[in-house]
Amino acid sequence: MNTQYDQSDVELFRENVKRFIAEEISPHFEQWEKDKIIPRDIWNKIGDAGFLCVDTPEQYGGFGAHFIFSATIEEEFSRAGCASIASNISVHSDIVAPYLINHGTEEQKNKYLPKMVSGEYVGAIAMTEPGAGSDLQGIRTTAKKDGENYIINGSKTFITNGQHCDFVITATKTNTEVSGSKGTSLFIVDTNNTGFSRGRNLDKIGQHSADTSELFFEQVSVSSGALLGQLDCGFAVLMNELPRERLILSIGAIAACEGILDWTIEYTSERKAFSQTISSFQNTRFRVAEMTTETRVNRSFVNECIDLYSKGELDTATASMAKLSTTELQGRVVDGCLQLFGGYGYMVEYPIGRAFVDARIQRIYGGTSEIMKEIVSRSIFGR
Amino acid sequence: MNTQYDQSDVELFRENVKRFIAEEISPHFEQWEKDKIIPRDIWNKIGDAGFLCVDTPEQYGGFGAHFIFSATIEEEFSRAGCASIASNISVHSDIVAPYLINHGTEEQKNKYLPKMVSGEYVGAIAMTEPGAGSDLQGIRTTAKKDGENYIINGSKTFITNGQHCDFVITATKTNTEVSGSKGTSLFIVDTNNTGFSRGRNLDKIGQHSADTSELFFEQVSVSSGALLGQLDCGFAVLMNELPRERLILSIGAIAACEGILDWTIEYTSERKAFSQTISSFQNTRFRVAEMTTETRVNRSFVNECIDLYSKGELDTATASMAKLSTTELQGRVVDGCLQLFGGYGYMVEYPIGRAFVDARIQRIYGGTSEIMKEIVSRSIFGR
Amino acid sequence: MNTQYDQSDVELFRENVKRFIAEEISPHFEQWEKDKIIPRDIWNKIGDAGFLCVDTPEQYGGFGAHFIFSATIEEEFSRAGCASIASNISVHSDIVAPYLINHGTEEQKNKYLPKMVSGEYVGAIAMTEPGAGSDLQGIRTTAKKDGENYIINGSKTFITNGQHCDFVITATKTNTEVSGSKGTSLFIVDTNNTGFSRGRNLDKIGQHSADTSELFFEQVSVSSGALLGQLDCGFAVLMNELPRERLILSIGAIAACEGILDWTIEYTSERKAFSQTISSFQNTRFRVAEMTTETRVNRSFVNECIDLYSKGELDTATASMAKLSTTELQGRVVDGCLQLFGGYGYMVEYPIGRAFVDARIQRIYGGTSEIMKEIVSRSIFGR
Amino acid sequence: MNTQYDQSDVELFRENVKRFIAEEISPHFEQWEKDKIIPRDIWNKIGDAGFLCVDTPEQYGGFGAHFIFSATIEEEFSRAGCASIASNISVHSDIVAPYLINHGTEEQKNKYLPKMVSGEYVGAIAMTEPGAGSDLQGIRTTAKKDGENYIINGSKTFITNGQHCDFVITATKTNTEVSGSKGTSLFIVDTNNTGFSRGRNLDKIGQHSADTSELFFEQVSVSSGALLGQLDCGFAVLMNELPRERLILSIGAIAACEGILDWTIEYTSERKAFSQTISSFQNTRFRVAEMTTETRVNRSFVNECIDLYSKGELDTATASMAKLSTTELQGRVVDGCLQLFGGYGYMVEYPIGRAFVDARIQRIYGGTSEIMKEIVSRSIFGR
Repeated sequence: MNTQYDQSDVELFRENVKRFIAEEISPHFEQWEKDKIIPRDIWNKIGDAGFLCVDTPEQYGGFGAHFIFSATIEEEFSRAGCASIASNISVHSDIVAPYLINHGTEEQKNKYLPKMVSGEYVGAIAMTEPGAGSDLQGIRTTAKKDGENYIINGSKTFITNGQHCDFVITATKTNTEVSGSKGTSLFIVDTNNTGFSRGRNLDKIGQHSADTSELFFEQVSVSSGALLGQLDCGFAVLMNELPRERLILSIGAIAACEGILDWTIEYTSERKAFSQTISSFQNTRFRVAEMTTETRVNRSFVNECIDLYSKGELDTATASMAKLSTTELQGRVVDGCLQLFGGYGYMVEYPIGRAFVDARIQRIYGGTSEIMKEIVSRSIFGR
Repeated sequence: MNTQYDQSDVELFRENVKRFIAEEISPHFEQWEKDKIIPRDIWNKIGDAGFLCVDTPEQYGGFGAHFIFSATIEEEFSRAGCASIASNISVHSDIVAPYLINHGTEEQKNKYLPKMVSGEYVGAIAMTEPGAGSDLQGIRTTAKKDGENYIINGSKTFITNGQHCDFVITATKTNTEVSGSKGTSLFIVDTNNTGFSRGRNLDKIGQHSADTSELFFEQVSVSSGALLGQLDCGFAVLMNELPRERLILSIGAIAACEGILDWTIEYTSERKAFSQTISSFQNTRFRVAEMTTETRVNRSFVNECIDLYSKGELDTATASMAKLSTTELQGRVVDGCLQLFGGYGYMVEYPIGRAFVDARIQRIYGGTSEIMKEIVSRSIFGR
Repeated sequence: MNTQYDQSDVELFRENVKRFIAEEISPHFEQWEKDKIIPRDIWNKIGDAGFLCVDTPEQYGGFGAHFIFSATIEEEFSRAGCASIASNISVHSDIVAPYLINHGTEEQKNKYLPKMVSGEYVGAIAMTEPGAGSDLQGIRTTAKKDGENYIINGSKTFITNGQHCDFVITATKTNTEVSGSKGTSLFIVDTNNTGFSRGRNLDKIGQHSADTSELFFEQVSVSSGALLGQLDCGFAVLMNELPRERLILSIGAIAACEGILDWTIEYTSERKAFSQTISSFQNTRFRVAEMTTETRVNRSFVNECIDLYSKGELDTATASMAKLSTTELQGRVVDGCLQLFGGYGYMVEYPIGRAFVDARIQRIYGGTSEIMKEIVSRSIFGR
Repeated sequence: MNTQYDQSDVELFRENVKRFIAEEISPHFEQWEKDKIIPRDIWNKIGDAGFLCVDTPEQYGGFGAHFIFSATIEEEFSRAGCASIASNISVHSDIVAPYLINHGTEEQKNKYLPKMVSGEYVGAIAMTEPGAGSDLQGIRTTAKKDGENYIINGSKTFITNGQHCDFVITATKTNTEVSGSKGTSLFIVDTNNTGFSRGRNLDKIGQHSADTSELFFEQVSVSSGALLGQLDCGFAVLMNELPRERLILSIGAIAACEGILDWTIEYTSERKAFSQTISSFQNTRFRVAEMTTETRVNRSFVNECIDLYSKGELDTATASMAKLSTTELQGRVVDGCLQLFGGYGYMVEYPIGRAFVDARIQRIYGGTSEIMKEIVSRSIFGR
C-alpha cells in the first residue's frame, strides 16, 4: 500500500472531485432520486474521471494511489449531500475492490479490477439474508460441490448496487454441518449467470437513488475459480476487510456532518425570524457550537484512523469505534440542524431534509451501532 | 362545552374509529402516499362515518360531543401510522372548526359548520408565509378596505389541506401602520374566489399524503361578512385557540408513540437474531422499557391536559409544555424503535420507517419546540 | 386505607410541615450534615409534631390519615433540600411501618407502631448485604431454628437509620437448601438484642446526615414472635410493599426537582453576569423551560400513581416506572440547575450543591435504575 | 519552546510520576481530603521530584522540557483520582508560570520562576470576584496610581491555592473610566504584603483538598515593578494564555475519564450480581463501550491539540472546544460509571465517588461550558 502522499495533491484532487460533482452529478441528482436509481452510464463517467477504486495497483489498471484519495471521493460525495451515490461508490471501491485485491487470485484480479476502475463493471457484495440482519452466522444460502462446480441456492437482501451490479461477491455456507460462522465461503457470481435474478429495487425512506435490492440464486452454477479466498474460510476474509469497510463509513459520516453544518451556518446567517437572523439567537449559536465541536473532535479521530489504516495498524475495534461514534453523531447533527431550518427543513427541495432521511441508515448498515458496541466491549472485556 | 362523558362510550367509539381505519383507510394508504394526496371523497366518507368536528354543537349540524371523542379520532389515526390523515383531520376539526365555533358569526357558523361535519367542505388555515416560519408577527399579506369589501394580496405556505380545502381562514394585516402582531385580521376566503390560487403540493420528506401547499392571493375581494372575529384583533383569536391546537398535536404525538411501541414490542418478540429473539437482548429490553416509561409518563400528562381543556382551564403555557414534551418524545421513540428493526426499519413497507419521517415535522409545525420553550420560559420568568 | 381527603386539609397540613422545617430543621441542618447524623431527639420532635407514620390506623396510635399526608411530609423535606432526613423518615414511615401494618401480628403492631408514631422507636430495614447490591436473591444472612427461637448470623450494609434505629426488619435465609429468593424470612430484631452491633456510619459523598450504616448479627437470638409474615415467605412480603417504597422515592424525587427549580428561577432572576440577569440569556430560559416541562410532566404521573396507590391499584411495574423516571429526571435537573449557579453551585453553602450530591443515590437505592428497567421490561415482554 | 521529544522519554517520565503518586500522595490523600488542604511541604516534595513548571527555561531554574511532560504530570494526577492536587499543580505550573514566562520582566522571572520550580513558592491567579463569575468584564478590584506605587483594593473568590500561595497574579481595573475588559492590569501581589489577607478556605462539594479561597486586598501597596504585562492591557495577556489554560483542563479531563473507565472495567469484571459478573450484562458492556468510544475519540482530539499547542498553532476557539468537549464528557463518564458501582459508588472509600464530586467543577471553572460555546460560536459566525 502506498503510505506517502502530499497534502497539496489531495487538495487538488479534492477540487477535481468537487467540480465533477457540481457538473455531472448535482444538476441531475433530484431526478435520479425520483427515478430511484442513477443511470448506468454514470458509473462509466465516474470511472472515466478516475474516481473509482483509485488505490488499485497499477498492474490491475488502477492508480496505486494512497487510500486518502479514495477517502476524499467518499468525503466529497457525502459532503455534497449525495449520500446514495457515496454508498454506491464505497461498496464498489472500498469494499468489493479490496476483497479482490487482498484475497483474489491473479485471474480474478485481472478479470475484474481493470473494469471496476473504468466503470465497465459494477461490483456488489451480498451478505445479508432476509430475516437475518447483521447476523452473518445465520447464513442459509448454500453452495454445494457438484463436480468441478458449486451450485448456489438462496436469497439475499439489502444489497447496494443490486440493480446495476455486474458481479456479486456472495457469502454462502459450503459446510452446513458446522455452526456459526464456520464453513462459510465467498463466491464471485457474475450476474449473467443462469439462475441469478434481481428482485425488487427496495423502497426505502431515504437514499432513494441507491439501488438497494433483493437478489435470488436458484441453482446458480459457478466454477471453483469463482471461489474468493479459501474454502470454508469466508468469514476470515470478511473479518480482515472490516476495518476498511467501517472506516469508509465513518469518513462518509464525518464529511456529511461537515457539509450539513456548512449549509446550516449559511442558512441561519441569512434567514431572519422575529426581525433578526436565526444565527443571532443564543439557542442557535449554542446548538451550532455544540455540533461543530463534536464534529471537530470526531474529525480528529477519523483522521487518526485514516493514518492507522494507511500504516496497516487499524484494528477492527478501533474502526468500529469510528463507525459507531461518527454515524451516531451524524444522526444527532442532521436532526439538530434540520430543526434550525424550521418548516423548510422538511421540504425535499432543501438538501437538509434529504440528508436527514439518508443518514438514518448509517447507524444500521455495515453493522448496526449495537454490533459495534458488542465488538468494542469484547475488545475491552476480552470476551 | 360538554364536560361529561362515559368512558365506555369512548371505548365503543374508539372501536368504531379503528374499524373504519382498517376498512376504509389502511388498504389504500400506501397508494395515497405515492399519490401524495388522499382522494377528495375520503373526506366525505370520514364525515359520513361521523368522525369530523364531533364536538360541534347540534344546532350547527354536529353531535355536541365531548372533546374526548375528537381526541380519540386523532389518537387512532396517529396510532395506526396514518399521521398525514391525522394532520388533515386535526386542522379541519380541531383548529378550523373551533375558530368558527368560538369566534364566528351566526351566519358563518351556519354556512360552514354543517358542511364541515359532513365533509362537503374541507377547511384550512393560512398563517405561515414564505420566509417567516413560526413568526406570525412578520405577516405581509394585506387586506385593504375597499368600500364594503376587503382586497387581499399575499402568499402563504406550508398550508395543510391546501389542495382539497374549500375555504381558508387567512391571517392578514389590516393595519400596516402598527408593528408586531397588532393590526392583524382573519378572513374566511372561499377558494372559488377570483384571485385565489393554489400553488404546488409541496414535496416533503414525510407525511406524503398530506396536501401541504402554497396558496396565492391576488386581488382577492371578500365582503366584510368574511371577517372572522374583530377587525385588527386576529391575534387575540389565534392566541385563544392555541391551547387546543397544541393539545391536539400532543394527543397525536403520544398516541403515535404508543402505536410505535406496540409494533416494536411485537416485532422484537418475534424476530430472531443470533439465534434468539431480539427482545431477549438486555439492550432491547432496557431501550423498550425506557421508551415505554417515558410514554406512560407523558400519557398521564396529556390526559391531565385533556381534563383541563374540558374544564376550560388549559392555559397556553401548559399546552405548550404538552406539545414540546410529547413531540420531542415522539422523535426519540420513533428513532429508538426504528433502530430495533434494523435494515427493515429503513424500508417503506414497514410502518416504522414512515412513522420516522412523518414524526419529524411534529417538532416544527404548530410552533417549533423553540417557540414552545420561549412561551414556557415567559410563563416562568414573567417576561 | 383512608381513600378520601380534602385538598384544603392537605394544603393546611403542608403549611404546618413547612413551618416545622423552617423552625426546627433548617437552622441546624448544616451542623447535622457536618456531624454526619441528626440528634436522636429530632425523631421525637418530628413525632410530637405528628409527622411520623401518619397513615397508621388509630387503634395503633396513628392518625389513620390518607397516604397523601405521608406523601406531603416526604415532599416538603425533599423540597427544602433536606434529602437525608427525607430518607430517614421515608424508611421509617413509608417502608417499615407499612411492613408492620400489612404483615405484622397484633402483638407486633401494638409493640412497635405507637412508639414509631411518637418517635420513641426508630425503625430500619436491612436487606442489602456487602457485595450483593440490589440482588436480594444472594442473601447470606441466616436464621436457624433453635428450639422456640431463631439464631441470626450475618451482616448488612447501606442501612438507613442504622445508628439511631431501635429495631431492624432483617431479611434472612431460613431455608438455605432452596436457591434464589425462596426460603427467605423477615425478623424484627431489637437492637438491644445480644449479638447485634452497629458498624460504621458510612462515609458517603452526600446525604451526610443520614446515618447509613453497616449492621452485624452474631448469634443473635430472637423468638418466633419476631417473625414478620410467614416463614420462608419473606420475599412475598417484600414484593407486596415494593409499590409504596418506589412511590415514596418518586414523590421525594419530584418534589426535590420542584424545589431545585424554584431556587434556580430565583437565583437566575436576581444574579447578573455580563451586565444582565442570568435569566435573560436564551440558554438559561430554554434550559429552565425544558427542565420545568419535564418536571411538570412527571408530577402529573406521580399524582396519578398516588391516586392509584390510594385505591390499591398501583402495581410494581407502574411504581417502578415512577421511580425510574423521576430519579433519572432529578439527576438531570440538579445537574442542569447547578450549572446555572456557576461557581456558587459548587459551594456547600448554596443548597444546590448539596442537592446535587444528595440526588446521586436516588438512582441507586430502593433498586437501581437498571433493576427498574428490568422490572418494566418483564411487564412488557411477559418474561 | 521545545518542540521535539522522544516518546520513550515521556513514558519513562510517566512511570516516575506514577511511582511518586503511589508513594507520596495516595497513602495520605484521604486524610488531606478530610483536612480540606494538603500539607504545605508537599509542594516542596513535588518540586524536589522535578514535577513543577517543567517547561520553564533552564535559565530560570527549569528543565526547558517539552510541554508534553507538563501534560503528563496533569494526566497522572488526574488519572489517579487526585483531581484537587491536579488542579493545584495546573494553576501553578500551567497557568501562573506561563504568564510569567511569556509576559514577565527579567526581574520578575528571576524572582519567581526558580522558586516555583522548586516548590518554595506557590503561585495563584485571582480573576473571579464575588458575584461576577466567569465575567471578567465586571472586575471591580482597583489599582490606583499612588506615586511610584499602586494601591489595590477589592476582593476575589474561588481562588485555587488560596491558602498556600506565596504570590497572586491579580486582575485589577487601572482605568475605571473605560468599560468592559479595557483598562485592566495584572499585578503580582506577594502575600506578605500589608493589607492582603486570606479569607475562608471555601467548603465545596468536592475537590476537598484544593484550598479554594477568598482573598482580600485592602489598601495593598505594590511597586510598579509588580505590574505583569503592560498597563491597562491585562486582558490581552489573559487572552494570550487562554489556549494553554483550557488545554491543560482538557488534558486533566480526558485522563480522568481514562482512569475512571479503568476502575470501572476492573470492578465490573470482578464484582458479581445475580450470580454473574456485572460485566457480563449487556447493559454494562454497552455502556462501557459507549463511554470508552467517546473517551477514545476525545483523546485523539486532545492529542491533536497538544501537537498544535507545541507548534504554537492552538487558537482559543479550538482550545475551547477541547475544554468543552472533554469536561462535558467527564461529567457523563463519571456519572455513568458510578452507576455501575451501585451503592459502593456512593461511598467515599471508593475513588469513583470522589471522582464524581471532583468532576462537577470542571464544566464551570476556567470558563463555563456556556462561555466555551459562546467563544466557539463567535469563531463560527464571526461575531
